[in-house]
Amino acid sequence: MLHLKSESGSRWLDQVEQHTDLVLIDHAHCEKKAAGTALNLMFAYVEDEELCREMTSIVNEELEHFHMVLDLLKQREIKFRRLKPSNYGSQLHDLIRSQEPSRAVDRLLIAGLIEARSCERFGLLRKHLPDEELRDFYDSLFESEARHHAVYVRLAKHFADESEVMSRLDELAAAEADIIASGDENPRMHS
Amino acid sequence: MLHLKSESGSRWLDQVEQHTDLVLIDHAHCEKKAAGTALNLMFAYVEDEELCREMTSIVNEELEHFHMVLDLLKQREIKFRRLKPSNYGSQLHDLIRSQEPSRAVDRLLIAGLIEARSCERFGLLRKHLPDEELRDFYDSLFESEARHHAVYVRLAKHFADESEVMSRLDELAAAEADIIASGDENPRMHS
Repeated sequence: MLHLKSESGSRWLDQVEQHTDLVLIDHAHCEKKAAGTALNLMFAYVEDEELCREMTSIVNEELEHFHMVLDLLKQREIKFRRLKPSNYGSQLHDLIRSQEPSRAVDRLLIAGLIEARSCERFGLLRKHLPDEELRDFYDSLFESEARHHAVYVRLAKHFADESEVMSRLDELAAAEADIIASGDENPRMHS
Repeated sequence: MLHLKSESGSRWLDQVEQHTDLVLIDHAHCEKKAAGTALNLMFAYVEDEELCREMTSIVNEELEHFHMVLDLLKQREIKFRRLKPSNYGSQLHDLIRSQEPSRAVDRLLIAGLIEARSCERFGLLRKHLPDEELRDFYDSLFESEARHHAVYVRLAKHFADESEVMSRLDELAAAEADIIASGDENPRMHS
């Protein structure tokens, strides 16, 4: 369902356990960036009505989640602050083809893969975190990431036929798995 | 209350009456751009909690208005499409000082002046348009523009003291009035 080519291993869970505060701060930034991505896609393909409506819902939901994470940080007295992002997003971004309509397909599929990876990792967090409140928190966010993934893959089919979209998704998912496998020394949601 | 230095005259109302469809399409783009502006301000000043909350509300409201205008276009069988924007936004943008915190003050005040001008013009539309449905539509949007204006001016005071903000608002409002007076041959919401 999530089209991922790998599972996150214990290396990442160890990073999270040792630096939970940093991962929570990074999570807030990820929600904010996800809202920005959806709004940029709406700007780029504003004549696609279904895309506009879906992006609007996603912007609203991501901003709602952003505030949920901010509230959680506040409650735990963790100061929200700027953080060097993991290299995950920029490496994925480099894979986007420059010519339309391929560019649209890639932007949507990459947005969808980021949602899929978040979903997979929220699934691990809701199982393995020692802190019950955090387990419940990630459980509450799990479903929307899966839903967003499906929306992005569906919208990619506005710009290319189904077989082309699915084969490109396969390629990008393989690249995404390589990026995840190489990791990031900074503890982040996608390190 | 709106801090504007001029009133829109009959030149603009004539443009609207002769090219209502174009102004409606431009209005949809303006709502979308206003959402983008608010999100960008949130990204730039993400450590300011009140600003983040206010920008989130504004993003949500502007996107809601965007869809209201899209619905109106659809109902009137006017095709939503890309449009060369008026030169209003880019001319205002050129006035933003580059050094922080002056940059933050200017970005917020200019966003506030754009809301103020929209409010003033929605006020004219709700009075003078021959089409009753459109008059009601602009009446329904009037109040939120005034509210957004007040939010932006208030937030600017997070980055400079009150007297500095108010004197800069005075300067920028004078420049805005000049831009409006010079007009734009393309019929737009801010021509």
